[in-house]
Amino acid sequence: MTSEADRLVARLMSGEARALARAISIVEDRQPAARDIIRAIYPRAGRAPIVGVTGPPGAGKSTLVDQLAGAYRREGLKVGIIAVDPSSAFSGGAVLGDRIRMQRHSTDDGVFIRSMATRGHFGGLAGATVDVADLMDAAGCQVLIIETVGVGQDEVDVVTVADVVLVVLVPGLGDDIQTIKAGIMEIPDIFVLNKADRDGIDRLQADVKTMLSFVESPSRPAPRIVRTIATGAPQGADGIDLLHQTIAELLKGSDPARLAVRRRERSRERVLSLLRQRVLEWAAGPGSGGAFEQLVEEVAARAVDPYTAADQLLSRFAPVKEEP
Amino acid sequence: MTSEADRLVARLMSGEARALARAISIVEDRQPAARDIIRAIYPRAGRAPIVGVTGPPGAGKSTLVDQLAGAYRREGLKVGIIAVDPSSAFSGGAVLGDRIRMQRHSTDDGVFIRSMATRGHFGGLAGATVDVADLMDAAGCQVLIIETVGVGQDEVDVVTVADVVLVVLVPGLGDDIQTIKAGIMEIPDIFVLNKADRDGIDRLQADVKTMLSFVESPSRPAPRIVRTIATGAPQGADGIDLLHQTIAELLKGSDPARLAVRRRERSRERVLSLLRQRVLEWAAGPGSGGAFEQLVEEVAARAVDPYTAADQLLSRFAPVKEEP
Repeated sequence: MTSEADRLVARLMSGEARALARAISIVEDRQPAARDIIRAIYPRAGRAPIVGVTGPPGAGKSTLVDQLAGAYRREGLKVGIIAVDPSSAFSGGAVLGDRIRMQRHSTDDGVFIRSMATRGHFGGLAGATVDVADLMDAAGCQVLIIETVGVGQDEVDVVTVADVVLVVLVPGLGDDIQTIKAGIMEIPDIFVLNKADRDGIDRLQADVKTMLSFVESPSRPAPRIVRTIATGAPQGADGIDLLHQTIAELLKGSDPARLAVRRRERSRERVLSLLRQRVLEWAAGPGSGGAFEQLVEEVAARAVDPYTAADQLLSRFAPVKEEP
Repeated sequence: MTSEADRLVARLMSGEARALARAISIVEDRQPAARDIIRAIYPRAGRAPIVGVTGPPGAGKSTLVDQLAGAYRREGLKVGIIAVDPSSAFSGGAVLGDRIRMQRHSTDDGVFIRSMATRGHFGGLAGATVDVADLMDAAGCQVLIIETVGVGQDEVDVVTVADVVLVVLVPGLGDDIQTIKAGIMEIPDIFVLNKADRDGIDRLQADVKTMLSFVESPSRPAPRIVRTIATGAPQGADGIDLLHQTIAELLKGSDPARLAVRRRERSRERVLSLLRQRVLEWAAGPGSGGAFEQLVEEVAARAVDPYTAADQLLSRFAPVKEEP
């Protein structure tokens, strides 16, 4: 490990926010130092519980996550928030709304917020997110919240590796949204019915219960349902304390095997992520000696089929061994 | 190739819908015969143009695709539609709405509709979708439409490999939707402003133009903007004919290099998809001799870091060579 990476890790572990931000950038961009940094912090991380929050666009996830972070702050805990954005497919640029949001907590050094774009994670978004969670953990964050729009498969994968998964729904989002709901019915530990002061909240709760009855399984407890008004309501009526308490109960819960399974899933996801990344980097890089681009041309010209091309590439595969 | 796969390919190429459906299932499930089938049809496919349609939930994409399919039918063309659903993350089940929809065209054997779940594509959704497109093409479909909810990165990747990409927007979907819009601004060849009879359509068009001004590029033509009312309006006023004509213009358009680039991207995507798939199958299968599961356990226990685990796995990688 270079002495520079060494110093960065030491500063990160002492809880310095700028060092954490820098380390995250290095890991996200897969710079060479990423491997050293993850190796150095890896034994120290894995302590903070991870709360995953997902749901359709318009469900008020960001506001809810802010409120939940507030509840953890009142407990005196340091909070790390990872907000996964559906970003531009071509430029990878972050979106304005998120930058504004990140400023909101900028005066509280007990909350560290990081926005991650969905684009450009060669090995998969879920693996990259878990890396960032580990960095926050090593830097002293005591609870981690990962927030993502739960529509694409990548985004759903991200939260399913959390220790507790919240799916946020709201009344009256129309038919297409109902379709998405069907798709995420089996993920959550807690359904958060947000904007509970709106018309249609009882109907929504009835719908959720009906859908749950189709996916009941004896091997897992039925998800909890908590109503919230994340934008605010008289003390207690906003449901945030109840939500906070329900999450704590599930984390302490009766089934330690459940947490172990999630932890193994996270490990699997990040090893797979690195495998994918290494193979793709090899193929598209100088390692394949230009064979990849040439085969892509031949496949495009319909002279070679994709299976034959993959076979030819893999028969040449020899990963470059990197020194520890 | 087995004589069974042989017969299936012959029936598929003669345009038999049941053989096409069966071949798609084999390819989607990555059954051993998938390779034989794709190899056999590969030189025959790649003729039909691919129209990609995406947009946020609630934009009316399905109805629009139905109308567009109708326009192609009036031209006398056979149409293949691939509807990519955000499906259950755990069960992989299809959603009800889609099954209903597929029945709508069931009396017209000039339209073949296939619904694909986003889940379980080991090598990536985009690669699997392109395989299905090739099968439809080989079976005689003369134009292919791929429709997906354009929120997750996977789903966006799917349509970006199309020859012409449509992004469907509607007035008044709220702030989170605006965020998504920012994310997909650079993808489309055509912005379809649907539900054009609604309040806010002029505002939406102004917003789109403003956002486009930020991403202007001399290397690509500015996207077209077409207003539609897919649910119907007096003859011509629904905008479907204009949309149909605009797509045709772009396909015939002045820049053959553009289509070649998309075609190469598609080839790249499917070769990468197969590479990922093969490596992951090797790791999680008997090929790695249980090393993968053991390393995942050690990573979960924080005894080994993920980078070291990936190195150890890759140093053992030896793809099983399959006979052509």
